[in-house]
Amino acid sequence: VKLTDLGTPALVVEQAALTHNLTAMAAALPGERLRPHVKAHKCTRLAAAQAEAGHRHFTAATVREVVGLARAGLGEDVLLANEVVDRHRLRAAVASGARLTVAVDSEETIAAAAAAGVREVLIDVNVGLPRCGCDPADAGRLAERARTVGLAVRGVMGYEGHVVGLPDRAARVEQTEAAMRLLLDAHGRVGGDVVSAGGTGTYDINTWATEVQAGSYALMDTAYGELGLGFVAALGVLATVISVGSGGWAVADCGLKALGMDHGNPTLADGGVVWYCSDEHITFSPADGAPAYRVGQRIRVVPAHVDPTVAYHEWLHVVDGDDVVESWPVDLRGW
Amino acid sequence: VKLTDLGTPALVVEQAALTHNLTAMAAALPGERLRPHVKAHKCTRLAAAQAEAGHRHFTAATVREVVGLARAGLGEDVLLANEVVDRHRLRAAVASGARLTVAVDSEETIAAAAAAGVREVLIDVNVGLPRCGCDPADAGRLAERARTVGLAVRGVMGYEGHVVGLPDRAARVEQTEAAMRLLLDAHGRVGGDVVSAGGTGTYDINTWATEVQAGSYALMDTAYGELGLGFVAALGVLATVISVGSGGWAVADCGLKALGMDHGNPTLADGGVVWYCSDEHITFSPADGAPAYRVGQRIRVVPAHVDPTVAYHEWLHVVDGDDVVESWPVDLRGW
Repeated sequence: VKLTDLGTPALVVEQAALTHNLTAMAAALPGERLRPHVKAHKCTRLAAAQAEAGHRHFTAATVREVVGLARAGLGEDVLLANEVVDRHRLRAAVASGARLTVAVDSEETIAAAAAAGVREVLIDVNVGLPRCGCDPADAGRLAERARTVGLAVRGVMGYEGHVVGLPDRAARVEQTEAAMRLLLDAHGRVGGDVVSAGGTGTYDINTWATEVQAGSYALMDTAYGELGLGFVAALGVLATVISVGSGGWAVADCGLKALGMDHGNPTLADGGVVWYCSDEHITFSPADGAPAYRVGQRIRVVPAHVDPTVAYHEWLHVVDGDDVVESWPVDLRGW
Repeated sequence: VKLTDLGTPALVVEQAALTHNLTAMAAALPGERLRPHVKAHKCTRLAAAQAEAGHRHFTAATVREVVGLARAGLGEDVLLANEVVDRHRLRAAVASGARLTVAVDSEETIAAAAAAGVREVLIDVNVGLPRCGCDPADAGRLAERARTVGLAVRGVMGYEGHVVGLPDRAARVEQTEAAMRLLLDAHGRVGGDVVSAGGTGTYDINTWATEVQAGSYALMDTAYGELGLGFVAALGVLATVISVGSGGWAVADCGLKALGMDHGNPTLADGGVVWYCSDEHITFSPADGAPAYRVGQRIRVVPAHVDPTVAYHEWLHVVDGDDVVESWPVDLRGW
C-alpha cells in the first residue's frame, strides 16, 4: 500500500521516527523503569512495540484500555492510573485477566475497588497538580483503610503534571524534586515497592520514582517538541488539498474532528501558515516564497497535542517514505 | 434504563429540548426550506427525527455521512456540501443509492465528480469565508465546464460561515445580504433551481437561499447559545466526580477526548467553575455558595462546540429526567 492510496484525513506515523523514540526511551529507562502510558496512542499494536522494546508493564487511563491490553496479551502488569467509582466497569477490568493495579485516593474509590474484586491498589498522592490524588498527609490513613478492606497496597503514585511542560529544564528539575519529596514522604507512610510518577517531560529527571509513566514520547507533538527532550515528531495527519482560493489560501480535509485543539492550531510540516480550522477543513497559505498549493496535493498536518488527536482516528498508519508499512487500529478509544 | 446506569463520560441530549429545537425549526423553515446538516450530530437516528419533522433532504460533509444516510433510508436527496477529489470515495457515495449532489468549485473537483459517476453538482461559490468555493466571477465558467463533461448543475451553494456567529443581529443581517448578493449574482450565471446556503446563526435571516443548511440548531452549544436564536441547549456530557481535592477543587471523568475544545473550555450546567481540562479529566470548583462536590456525584458538562464533541462519542443518549429514553449510535463518525 502506498501513501497515495490512503483516504484522508489519515493519521500517519513515520516508522523511523517511532523506532528512534522507542529505542531512545528504552536506552534511557530500560525495562520496568518505564511503564508506558497507552492513553497517548490508544493502540495495542504500538503497545506491543513498546513491549518488544522491553517495557511489559503498562499504564492505562480507562477501563477500556485495561481490557484491550489484556485481550492483546499485554496484561502482565497494568496500572489503571486513574480513579474509578464505576463498579461495573471495574469488574470488567478485573475480569479481563490482566494483573490489575488501580489508583485510589479516597474512601469511595477504595470501597469501589474492594466491591469490584480489585486486589491491588496504589495510593494516588497529589504532588501539586490540582487533579486527582489525596493530600500527602492522608496517604498513610488511606493505605491502612485499603488494607483493612482486603486490598494489597503496592505503593504510591503521584503525577507531576504541573511540571512536565515547563520550558526551562532547571525549573523542571527543581519542581520535580519538590513534587517527589512529597511523594516519597507519603510513600514512607504507605509502604510497598512501587513509586510511580513522571511523564515525557520529566522522564530523564525523575530519578525518585521507581517507574516513569511517560506516553507521549512515542509519537510526540509540537508542545513537547519545544522542550528538546531527544524525541522526534513522529505523528502527522495526512490531508488532501480540496480547494485553492483566489485570495491566496488553500483548504485541506483535516479539521476539528481530526485534531485535538486544546493546545491550539496545528502546524504544517512544509512550513505553510495555518489560518484556522473548522469542522472538516483547515485553511492555510504557502510559506514565504513557496509555490501555490494545488488541488489534489497531499500535505502533512502536525497536531499541537497528540492524545486527543489520536482519539479521533480509527487507524494509525505506519509509513516509510511513500510506503504504508502497516496499518494499526486505534483500538483503545472510548470508555 | 436510568441515567445513573450510564457509564461516564456519556453524551446526553434532553428529549424535551431536542423536540423544542426540531419543532421550532420545522415551524420556521418547513420541509425542504431546511436541508439539515448532519455533520453537527453524525447520527442517523437524529436525522430520522429531522425527517419526521418534515426535512427529508440532507446536507453532508463527508462521504461516510452520505453512505450512512443512504443505508438508513434517508438518501432521498443528499447534498455533499464539500469538495472531494478522492474518486474512490466519490464512487462509494454514488454506489450508496442516495440521490447525490456534490459541491464542486474547480476543474479538478468537476473532473473527479465526472470520473466517479456523480450525476448532479452544485457550483460552490465563495461568499466571503476563506474556505471552499470558487470566485463568484468564475461560477458561470465552472457550470459550463461541468455541463460539458456531462454533469447536471442544480444550482449554487455558498456558506456565509464568516457571518453565522456574529453576535450583533443587525450585522448578521447586513452581511448575510452582502454574501447572498454575491451568491445570487453567481446563480444568475450558473442557472438551476437550487440556492443552498445558511447555517443556524442565519436560519431566520437568509431569505435569499432556497434552502438553509443549518445543523447545530438541533443540539446547540454555548457559542450559538449566546446569539438568542430561539433554540435551547440540548446537549451535555454526563460525568462522574472521581476525586475531590483538599484545595477546593473536584475532578470528573470528562476530558479532552470527550470534548471539542476549539471554542474553549466547556461550562458546567450547575454553575460550577471550570479550572481546566486534561486528557481524561475536568477540574472545577463549586459555584459561589454551592456545597462541595462529592465523589460519585454526577455532573453535566456543556461543551462549547457541539460538532467536534459529538465526533468523540459512540452513543448519544436521549434522556427525560432520570430516564434514558433511547440510545442512538453516533454512526456517521470518521471518514
